[in-house]
Amino acid sequence: MKFTIGTDIGGTNTTTGIVDPSGKIIRSHSFRTDDYDDSQQYAAQLAESVTSLIQQTEAELGGADVEWLGMGIGAPNGNSLRNSIDHAPNLRFKGEILLADMLNQHLKLPTIRLANDANAAAIGEKIYGGAADYDHFIMITLGTGLGSGIYVDGKLVDGQHGMAGEVGHMSVIPNGRYCNYHRRGSLENYCSAMGIRRTFFEMLAETGQASKLNHLPIDDIDSKLIAKCASEGDAICKDTMEFTGRLLGEALASVALVTNPAAIFLFGGPVQAGDILLSPTRRSFEKHIIPTYQNKIKILTSELPLGEAALLGAAALVLTNK
Amino acid sequence: MKFTIGTDIGGTNTTTGIVDPSGKIIRSHSFRTDDYDDSQQYAAQLAESVTSLIQQTEAELGGADVEWLGMGIGAPNGNSLRNSIDHAPNLRFKGEILLADMLNQHLKLPTIRLANDANAAAIGEKIYGGAADYDHFIMITLGTGLGSGIYVDGKLVDGQHGMAGEVGHMSVIPNGRYCNYHRRGSLENYCSAMGIRRTFFEMLAETGQASKLNHLPIDDIDSKLIAKCASEGDAICKDTMEFTGRLLGEALASVALVTNPAAIFLFGGPVQAGDILLSPTRRSFEKHIIPTYQNKIKILTSELPLGEAALLGAAALVLTNK
Repeated sequence: MKFTIGTDIGGTNTTTGIVDPSGKIIRSHSFRTDDYDDSQQYAAQLAESVTSLIQQTEAELGGADVEWLGMGIGAPNGNSLRNSIDHAPNLRFKGEILLADMLNQHLKLPTIRLANDANAAAIGEKIYGGAADYDHFIMITLGTGLGSGIYVDGKLVDGQHGMAGEVGHMSVIPNGRYCNYHRRGSLENYCSAMGIRRTFFEMLAETGQASKLNHLPIDDIDSKLIAKCASEGDAICKDTMEFTGRLLGEALASVALVTNPAAIFLFGGPVQAGDILLSPTRRSFEKHIIPTYQNKIKILTSELPLGEAALLGAAALVLTNK
Repeated sequence: MKFTIGTDIGGTNTTTGIVDPSGKIIRSHSFRTDDYDDSQQYAAQLAESVTSLIQQTEAELGGADVEWLGMGIGAPNGNSLRNSIDHAPNLRFKGEILLADMLNQHLKLPTIRLANDANAAAIGEKIYGGAADYDHFIMITLGTGLGSGIYVDGKLVDGQHGMAGEVGHMSVIPNGRYCNYHRRGSLENYCSAMGIRRTFFEMLAETGQASKLNHLPIDDIDSKLIAKCASEGDAICKDTMEFTGRLLGEALASVALVTNPAAIFLFGGPVQAGDILLSPTRRSFEKHIIPTYQNKIKILTSELPLGEAALLGAAALVLTNK
C-alpha cells in the first residue's frame, strides 16, 4: 500500500498526517509551531513527528507491503522551486528556510516537497477534490488571509521565483484600506475573514445603524457570526456580505482575464456562508467579465473537507509530476 | 530557405508579409479590412493576397529551395484554440469567423494559425524580440486599446477558451470610467493611448489650469502630443503621464501576482514616451508589489520594431510547437 505524508505549517500549529491511496488521513500528529524560533530545532521536531507516525503506521500494518512515496509540506510563503519558506511574516523563524533540505538530514524519503499553502490546496483540489477534470482553474482560499493557486494546462503555475498565485495582494481599491507591507487597498483586506470583519465596521460607520451584533464585545465579532446574522436578516450584516461578494466577484473577473480558467474554486470558512456570499460574487463576476467569457467560467465551492484540505493538499504535492 | 507568412488584421487594414528565417519582412501587401462585411469574401481576398506574395517570392528566388512553413494571423478577439475571430467589436463581420478553415479552402500551406493580436505580439517578442531567454513573461501592448499575452513555463497561455491574456479589461478603479460593454473602470480606459487622452481631459478638469495644447482642436489631442508636451515641461501633460504610469504600475503588480513573471515587456506607441511614462510605472510597480517579489521583476520595453511587430508576431505563430 502506497502512503503519502502531508504537513500543514501554520503560525500556531504544525500538523502532519499519513494519507492512504484513497485520500483518507489515517493518522495525524500536531505540535506548536510557535514554540520554536530556531529553524533547525523546528525541523528536528517535525522530523521526529514524521518518524513517529511512520513507525506507528508500519507497526499497525505489520510492515507488510508499505511504501512511502514522500512528504509534502504546505507553508505560508512556501517557495516550490527551492522547497523553502521565504520571509513568512507569521512565523518566528525569519529569512529563507530551506526546510526540505533540513528534513532530508533526518528522514529517508524518496522526495520532500514544499509549496505555498494555497498552492498546495490547489493541488489537493485537483487530486482529491472537485478539479479532477479541469486543466485550467484557480483555487482561492479564504481564511484570515486570502491565498490562491493557479492551474494552467493541467499544471500548477510556479512562476519565475516559485511564488505565483498571490492574488490576495492584488490592488482592488486604489489608496484603499491599509494592508501589511505599507501597501493599500489589496483584495485580502476586503474579502478574507479578516476583511469581512473590517467591512462590518465600515458598514456600521457608513450607515450609522445598529446591528444585532452590537451587544457583543468587538473582539468577538468574526466573519462566521456576521454571515449567520446576515442570513437572519440583519441589514448591516447583509450589506457586509453583499459588499464582500461584489468586490470578490469583480476581483475574480480581473484574475480570470489573465489565465482564462474553466472554473474558480472557493475554499475556506467564509465560503460556508453559502449563497449570501456566493450569489453577489457570481453576479458581480458576470457583470465585470467581458462578453467573450460570459457564462463560461464557473464559480464553484471546494469539494475538499474543510478541516483536512491543508493536509490533503500538502500530501498531494508528492503525487504531481514536476 | 524556409519562409513564414504573417498577417495582421486590423479594423482598417489587413497587412500580410513574407518573413525570412532571420526575422526580416522581405515583402508585404495590404488591403482594406473594412471594405468587406462578408467573411467568405474577405477570406478569398486575403488568400489572393497571400498567393500573390508567394508567387512573387518564388519568382524572385527562381523557385530554388523555397519552403513555406505556414501562415500565422494576429487578429482582434482571435481565438487560438479554434483559429477563429470571435465577436470582434471593431470588425464588420460578426459572430465566430473560422478564418483558418476558410483560408485552407484556398491555400495549400502546412499550417494556418490564428491568435489574438497581443498574444501574437508576445510570441513575436519571444522569437524575434527581447524575450528569448524568458520562460515566464508578460507582453503588454499599448495602442488604442491595451492587450496582453502571458507566457508560463516557456509557453503562451491559451486558457480554457483560447482567450487568456485580456488584462486590458481588468477592473482598476471600481465604478471608474465608462468602458465598452457597459463595464466600468477597466485598465485600458486609463492606460492605453485612448486612456491617456481621457486622463488629459480629467487633468484639465481637476486642476482648472491651462495646457500648452489648449490652442488645438480637441480632435487633434493624442497620447503622442501629450507625451511630447510633458517632456517639454507642461504641467497638465506631466500630470497625465505621471497618473498613467502610477496606475499602470499598480495594475502590472496585480497581474504579476498571478503568474510571477521574470519580466513584463511594454510595447506600442505610448511606450515611445520613454522615461516620462516608464519611471512612474516602475516606481508604482515596486510600491505595489509584495516584498518577496521586490526588485525581481523587470519592466522592459519591447525589442520588436514598432511598425513590424504585428506581422512578425503573427508569422512567429507558425514557429511555436503547440
